[in-house]
Amino acid sequence: MTVDHYNNPDFFKKYSQMSRSTQGLAGAGEWSELQKLLPDFTNKEVLDLGCGYGWHCKFAADHGASHVVGIDVSQKMLAVAQAKNADEHISYRCAAMEDLDYPDNHFDCVISSLAFHYIADFSLLVQNITRWLRPNGTFVFSVEHPVFTARGDQDWFYGLNGEKLHFPVDHYYEEGVRDAVFLGEPVQKYHRTLTTYLHTLLQAGLVITDVIEPQPPETMMHLPEMKDELRRPMMLLVAARK
Amino acid sequence: MTVDHYNNPDFFKKYSQMSRSTQGLAGAGEWSELQKLLPDFTNKEVLDLGCGYGWHCKFAADHGASHVVGIDVSQKMLAVAQAKNADEHISYRCAAMEDLDYPDNHFDCVISSLAFHYIADFSLLVQNITRWLRPNGTFVFSVEHPVFTARGDQDWFYGLNGEKLHFPVDHYYEEGVRDAVFLGEPVQKYHRTLTTYLHTLLQAGLVITDVIEPQPPETMMHLPEMKDELRRPMMLLVAARK
Repeated sequence: MTVDHYNNPDFFKKYSQMSRSTQGLAGAGEWSELQKLLPDFTNKEVLDLGCGYGWHCKFAADHGASHVVGIDVSQKMLAVAQAKNADEHISYRCAAMEDLDYPDNHFDCVISSLAFHYIADFSLLVQNITRWLRPNGTFVFSVEHPVFTARGDQDWFYGLNGEKLHFPVDHYYEEGVRDAVFLGEPVQKYHRTLTTYLHTLLQAGLVITDVIEPQPPETMMHLPEMKDELRRPMMLLVAARK
Repeated sequence: MTVDHYNNPDFFKKYSQMSRSTQGLAGAGEWSELQKLLPDFTNKEVLDLGCGYGWHCKFAADHGASHVVGIDVSQKMLAVAQAKNADEHISYRCAAMEDLDYPDNHFDCVISSLAFHYIADFSLLVQNITRWLRPNGTFVFSVEHPVFTARGDQDWFYGLNGEKLHFPVDHYYEEGVRDAVFLGEPVQKYHRTLTTYLHTLLQAGLVITDVIEPQPPETMMHLPEMKDELRRPMMLLVAARK
């Protein structure tokens, strides 16, 4: 059962102030790289798992998708999606992605942005996604990087003067729950190794077509929060084909 | 031009005392996982880049390879290979792998164990390997993990009492030369990101068939040097198909 952290009003308020929330895709450091992995959406049936504010759903609809289903476990997130990114080609639906059931060969494309690290059983989910995809269908997702999730606190190691000395890695091979802090609030996430992310796709019979650890674009490097983003990988983008 | 660290007598002596040197494949923590990625060698033409003592060459020959070419930049290493792992089906040759030239579609399998992190131009090498491979040929390699090579010193971060607090990551996206220490001697290595390792294969037109961050097997976990090996990834194994 997925926990809906976004029902916490403090957390939701802070999330709504992030640049990715106020500016949408243009405010997300990984978007310029993620966009390159997305297919031509013309006349495609698209499923977005953990759609949040619906930015990716809207992008797919704006680029010709015949229908987009946006799934999120949070009613609060979907209320914003309806307000900011409604479209006649998009259906938003409140559900835990683990509980979904679709017919075989139903979607041309499944996307998911920064949601799978909240999911306990990645293997079962990938098996379902593979089943839901049509032959040659595309699966593109982003997750927090295993280097970022391994130790759990997701923070730098600081020197005596508060300077960021380096990013600490530990417990890498111990997969499972981590009590992380995100936007100052306790959040439960699941750490898994890079091996598990990629191997799970291969075992499901998917073909890996790209693996990217995105760097923020030059145009965002002046932002204070981007200053240290070249010191350790924070995200992992993966594209695969059925 | 590849530097031959193994011509340094102190370094060579220490290397010769490592369990992977005295015991061969059985003494290498990653071998049980690497072995799973290797193809059926029966009647195959095999190229081993950075063959060292020749353990992998001998394994291929013992498993039916029709011919194995073992390349290493170190005469000292090849002298040991000739002494320990000579075989009528193996030719050992002293050369820098960057300087090799083979006809197109010449080998069924190219392998390389822990050597590519000494190579400056990985992209050119992968293009050559792809060219040398026959259609459906197999490319399997191990390298030090990008998490392990990023900061350069390749050491833990220690607490006041000398305890290993965590493994520090820094400068991840700054690819290039690192002044590392291996067996107490200064060694120059090249750091590249996981993105670069995998993306380079995909851009060369190869199909990624497996990506593994090996954990030492249960049978080796009692060894003192394995105690902390589950705390951070140290190696990356990749298999691809032309």
